[in-house]
Amino acid sequence: MGKALIVYSGGLDTTVCIPLMREQGFGEIVTVTVDVGQPAEDIAQAAERAKILGCEHFTLDVKDEFAREYCMPAVHANADYFGYPLSTAIARPLIAKRAALKGLEVGCDAFVHGCTGKGNDQFRIEHGLKMFAGDLPVIAPVRERNLTRTWEIEYAEKNNVPIGQSKHKIWSIDENVWGRSIEGGRLEDPTYQPPEEIFQWTSSVEDAPNTPEEIEIAFENGNPVAINGEGMTPLAIVVRVNEIAGRHGVGRIDIMEDRMIGLKVRENYECPGSTLLIAAHRALEALVTTHAERAFKLQVDQQWAEMAYRGLWWEPFMDDLNAFIGSVQSRVSGWVKLRLYKGGLQVTSRGSDWALYSEAAASFDDVQVLEQSKMTGMVQTHGMESLLYAKLRKR
Amino acid sequence: MGKALIVYSGGLDTTVCIPLMREQGFGEIVTVTVDVGQPAEDIAQAAERAKILGCEHFTLDVKDEFAREYCMPAVHANADYFGYPLSTAIARPLIAKRAALKGLEVGCDAFVHGCTGKGNDQFRIEHGLKMFAGDLPVIAPVRERNLTRTWEIEYAEKNNVPIGQSKHKIWSIDENVWGRSIEGGRLEDPTYQPPEEIFQWTSSVEDAPNTPEEIEIAFENGNPVAINGEGMTPLAIVVRVNEIAGRHGVGRIDIMEDRMIGLKVRENYECPGSTLLIAAHRALEALVTTHAERAFKLQVDQQWAEMAYRGLWWEPFMDDLNAFIGSVQSRVSGWVKLRLYKGGLQVTSRGSDWALYSEAAASFDDVQVLEQSKMTGMVQTHGMESLLYAKLRKR
Amino acid sequence: MGKALIVYSGGLDTTVCIPLMREQGFGEIVTVTVDVGQPAEDIAQAAERAKILGCEHFTLDVKDEFAREYCMPAVHANADYFGYPLSTAIARPLIAKRAALKGLEVGCDAFVHGCTGKGNDQFRIEHGLKMFAGDLPVIAPVRERNLTRTWEIEYAEKNNVPIGQSKHKIWSIDENVWGRSIEGGRLEDPTYQPPEEIFQWTSSVEDAPNTPEEIEIAFENGNPVAINGEGMTPLAIVVRVNEIAGRHGVGRIDIMEDRMIGLKVRENYECPGSTLLIAAHRALEALVTTHAERAFKLQVDQQWAEMAYRGLWWEPFMDDLNAFIGSVQSRVSGWVKLRLYKGGLQVTSRGSDWALYSEAAASFDDVQVLEQSKMTGMVQTHGMESLLYAKLRKR
Amino acid sequence: MGKALIVYSGGLDTTVCIPLMREQGFGEIVTVTVDVGQPAEDIAQAAERAKILGCEHFTLDVKDEFAREYCMPAVHANADYFGYPLSTAIARPLIAKRAALKGLEVGCDAFVHGCTGKGNDQFRIEHGLKMFAGDLPVIAPVRERNLTRTWEIEYAEKNNVPIGQSKHKIWSIDENVWGRSIEGGRLEDPTYQPPEEIFQWTSSVEDAPNTPEEIEIAFENGNPVAINGEGMTPLAIVVRVNEIAGRHGVGRIDIMEDRMIGLKVRENYECPGSTLLIAAHRALEALVTTHAERAFKLQVDQQWAEMAYRGLWWEPFMDDLNAFIGSVQSRVSGWVKLRLYKGGLQVTSRGSDWALYSEAAASFDDVQVLEQSKMTGMVQTHGMESLLYAKLRKR
Repeated sequence: MGKALIVYSGGLDTTVCIPLMREQGFGEIVTVTVDVGQPAEDIAQAAERAKILGCEHFTLDVKDEFAREYCMPAVHANADYFGYPLSTAIARPLIAKRAALKGLEVGCDAFVHGCTGKGNDQFRIEHGLKMFAGDLPVIAPVRERNLTRTWEIEYAEKNNVPIGQSKHKIWSIDENVWGRSIEGGRLEDPTYQPPEEIFQWTSSVEDAPNTPEEIEIAFENGNPVAINGEGMTPLAIVVRVNEIAGRHGVGRIDIMEDRMIGLKVRENYECPGSTLLIAAHRALEALVTTHAERAFKLQVDQQWAEMAYRGLWWEPFMDDLNAFIGSVQSRVSGWVKLRLYKGGLQVTSRGSDWALYSEAAASFDDVQVLEQSKMTGMVQTHGMESLLYAKLRKR
Repeated sequence: MGKALIVYSGGLDTTVCIPLMREQGFGEIVTVTVDVGQPAEDIAQAAERAKILGCEHFTLDVKDEFAREYCMPAVHANADYFGYPLSTAIARPLIAKRAALKGLEVGCDAFVHGCTGKGNDQFRIEHGLKMFAGDLPVIAPVRERNLTRTWEIEYAEKNNVPIGQSKHKIWSIDENVWGRSIEGGRLEDPTYQPPEEIFQWTSSVEDAPNTPEEIEIAFENGNPVAINGEGMTPLAIVVRVNEIAGRHGVGRIDIMEDRMIGLKVRENYECPGSTLLIAAHRALEALVTTHAERAFKLQVDQQWAEMAYRGLWWEPFMDDLNAFIGSVQSRVSGWVKLRLYKGGLQVTSRGSDWALYSEAAASFDDVQVLEQSKMTGMVQTHGMESLLYAKLRKR
Repeated sequence: MGKALIVYSGGLDTTVCIPLMREQGFGEIVTVTVDVGQPAEDIAQAAERAKILGCEHFTLDVKDEFAREYCMPAVHANADYFGYPLSTAIARPLIAKRAALKGLEVGCDAFVHGCTGKGNDQFRIEHGLKMFAGDLPVIAPVRERNLTRTWEIEYAEKNNVPIGQSKHKIWSIDENVWGRSIEGGRLEDPTYQPPEEIFQWTSSVEDAPNTPEEIEIAFENGNPVAINGEGMTPLAIVVRVNEIAGRHGVGRIDIMEDRMIGLKVRENYECPGSTLLIAAHRALEALVTTHAERAFKLQVDQQWAEMAYRGLWWEPFMDDLNAFIGSVQSRVSGWVKLRLYKGGLQVTSRGSDWALYSEAAASFDDVQVLEQSKMTGMVQTHGMESLLYAKLRKR
Repeated sequence: MGKALIVYSGGLDTTVCIPLMREQGFGEIVTVTVDVGQPAEDIAQAAERAKILGCEHFTLDVKDEFAREYCMPAVHANADYFGYPLSTAIARPLIAKRAALKGLEVGCDAFVHGCTGKGNDQFRIEHGLKMFAGDLPVIAPVRERNLTRTWEIEYAEKNNVPIGQSKHKIWSIDENVWGRSIEGGRLEDPTYQPPEEIFQWTSSVEDAPNTPEEIEIAFENGNPVAINGEGMTPLAIVVRVNEIAGRHGVGRIDIMEDRMIGLKVRENYECPGSTLLIAAHRALEALVTTHAERAFKLQVDQQWAEMAYRGLWWEPFMDDLNAFIGSVQSRVSGWVKLRLYKGGLQVTSRGSDWALYSEAAASFDDVQVLEQSKMTGMVQTHGMESLLYAKLRKR
């Protein structure tokens, strides 16, 4: 049957896929780990396990591309799926795309992923693979064979598959530079208060510094380009703001999330950097947009979030939304100051050459602008329909 | 010309209206101060000044009605006009309504208000007066005569009108139980960082307690009904959460706001209680709503905020929006726990008998619910349009 | 295995289910045909075939309920899924509900339907069955066994199952009082012009009367209640307007439709009555609604159509949408005149006690209303943000 | 005071402005008539009257620019303000822009227009003048002096101002190549059936040809580029479809319209060409767009229509909307066939290289595409939230 490429994380689900695919008849197994900012030890462990199990392994570092092509658009769209900055969601299309292109390069005959049948990632990963690897088959052993964790652990042990501490893991973690998600165990219960131990990127408010920190983010065309005056690449900025906001305990998210197949689940995230960048971006957009475009962009951004959540990164609709968003971004240049302290994040000032703010107009000092006495007609016609309606009701 | 009723705050603008209306020929001046939670000293000062100037004065305490009929609907609609919980905005219709009804009761011949021609309140107040006092004329001396602050101070001094410290005031403050706004001076400049002195309801993060506080809000049909298990009236709840959240420095708001006549202004608010109640309400709604209703309610709430901001409280459209919102509220019963600390506000858990959350479904443990292998078709058809589009592009 | 209830149309798919279910071990087969306005001969044929095949058969006439509880809400929501008045879509939930309740009544052990795996009806029918028959299993033999038409015809012939002319049918027809759909054959090709023979409810423009006909529809609370002054039940009205509009060739619909699983298909419908009633209802709504509610109701109606198309008739979101829509309907009382001629439909006048139209206001004749000279301020501030933006661009 | 430029139509309102401006002290009067497709005799009459009254007159033919830069974007946005294709609305910005630029060229000191204070045009015209002529004053004598028609006629007669039959005109007409509006007299009454005499561009259904006509419109990137295979300029296409559709009585519009200052008025339009082009464009968009983009474009188009109606053609928000719309248009290439007959308009087929339609997918014939049996999971999870909700209700 030839060569199977496994989209490989080094975890339990994807590791058991290696012997499973061999049993299914694939002679060669290629494993690909796409590095979007997972912990270095996970990346290393994946490479090691793949080697132990005799696979040809590739680690693809796409962090820079991820920051430029995925995180920056997320800033432009103020990425927000009901409180979630879409950290895992926007990484999946890139992982799938890079795996697909590598698969074409090495001449693989099938793609394999380890997603289960209840989650969102199966949709995102399979769609991305199909978008770039056309008609090659995609195999999802865990979902298709109804595998359970218990079965997988037993199978791994029987087959001498190295799974390390997988069987003792309480939490299921996913990390990339845009954020970190923590799932599993009692966390799924919405009434359960998450314990401090699940957090790694953000300080507890108690441990956070006792002094507020002020930070200034500069933007050009919607992209953060400098922190406190120091110019940086998108990736460097994302990494740095994660560190700064995380230190102050900013970016812990505890929400109810509606999954793609109609399940509601409680989710915990740590997204310090994305929380900070989006708050700053929003504040700057508020300064340079007209009321009408600001009001409607809420809906455009909401649609963007729905599409991104579904992993439909290459839907034509996404192009349309990005065209709208990009048109707005052309004026989102300037700076925003924020104060970070003990989990709190406060915008304190902002400025832009494109500010739709005129001191003269706001204060009406400039008589040229408008004599206030002339507003009478506008005030008198305000709510005219309600007044007419009230008269009808009184009949 | 008879009797003029002045919607009276006791401040400079409305106080100079008293002699101005006398000059204009009104023999009797009735002043009405509608108490929606202004500082007691302002209420008292208004009564005193009105008496000094020989007016028949009424103070109408409508705080309970305000909490029940205005703040509770604001909770249901997660009141949010681009970051502003609409604190001043939702009080204006009630002030106008109560003044109008009092005017009809005392047989006044005209209504007078002190709003200027650049702000929002002229729209809200005049519309409310017209809604309830039908065809009686409404006079807006400050706007109609293009009065300036300087002119008013001189005029007051010439006419022995008591204006106290008005002329030295830097900030223009508006308060009611739903929030406090601070405007004026350099605050209008978006690049200016507001000084600590403008805040009165909220502690600075430095002064806030060094220990986090947990609070549990119970809701019934969308209304907060108890704090930490203690049942209270709407008004008592709003007052209490202002105190608790304010103590922890929660609820400082610093935004760019789009006024009704197309001006963008920087606004500072302190809304500790409304911030807390709305955060809790949102978290509970997230637990009991379906994805489709949750997504669309964002738009309904946005429309509600636009109407409330414009003071169009009795527009038929508001009834429609409230019908939608009320239908959702019928299931917004349960509790939410939040942690307050140093300006930060974090939802930590929530529960409801109407939670659209099923442990069995979320974990897929119950085989009856669904075998994951059956999801293949849904995954394979996901993004079908994008795949077709990609094929067309490749031609 | 007991008793299986087949949601029965008498057509090929559902008829082959009878022996298939017997083979699968069901001892008793109950067939239920829910009459929402199919042709009488189809209803009769279903009963006859069920008898021949030894089933216990029920025909449930729910046309009145369908008109009252499904078609009237469709009028209120101006039912429109991209040009389609949702005729088949809104009947499916009722068919499923009535079949489910009958199944509980007769003590069936399983439900069976004949929907294929590519269409929308499988979603609508299964969802409705589950909503009302809880945990009883639902079997979809055609989809689950990947049956093809060819296989079914051969199987029917081998098993002496009466399928009449089914094998020669070119078009697949679905009818109820709200409309008629015609699918199949070359019609699916969007470039193909549909032949005249597919139409049965609507005259060709050539055959339509040579004299225009005027019709007046009276509405109360959004419901059509009388035609040309003659009061009628909802069902009678729907039947009558089908006849009138159909005679004049009104209501032929030829659109591209996006199915639930991401397929685009060309669809042809004949919906004379629903087209006429919705056109009249829209015209009356335009007279009594404020601009804001009219503009937003477009979005509410669009959401309603998406939910109805998906058969999610009992989603809580539908209740919310209907609450909004119902609030508007409370003023949708009055009359609308339309002219019908040769396929064309033209509203010519309308009236209502709730008309938000004031001759005095519209003509500004009443000086009390407003002196036009006072509008200067509103005009001068119009587009203020654009003007400010233009100045910024010129720098 | 120098030179005043009058935006000149040759009608009563603008003609009386000439002596009025002279009385006000302007030594030179320049009149500018911007030709967007008014009747040739109106254009000629304006020039003649201007000459008689001693003005320097300019006629600017911008029909080609109007078709290219205003009508084509209206096609892309399926221009529809509650049934109105925005014919007058989209011409006003161009008229104002061209007048403003001419004013700058001839060195005028002020702009004058004849709009009244109740209509929409004052907003559109003044905004356009200010956008392009910066800080020059704009004078609106009719509005500012509260002029009535009666006063104007008397004043004209006293001053020997040629106003021809103006005083006997019953209807107020506005025409450009995108449509014709008819207002005034009893037409404002929504209950009045408009008489046949008001129509000039469209045949009555009785007079329309007794034979249906088929027309094929070809589109490239959203622009109509050919009729029945004959390539034409935008202007030529608009003119031709007006003739064809008008001949068949297509495009009569009778609606309730919400004006900008909260007045509802009944409006009658003849828009044969725009009705046809937009119907064709919609049909083609339906073929090439995904469901998500098609659904959301309804809202984008609605926003576009609101902005266009308000004359805010250069609002940054319009740029954003046009960016979205333009992204969609990149695939709106192909052809649409329509049948015209007796006032009716019917799309009968359509085709595009970008059609998101796959015969294989639609018919599921291609087993590769999807086995229908695999859809079970999607069907079973459909409406999962409703099912969960139903269980909660039953408790």
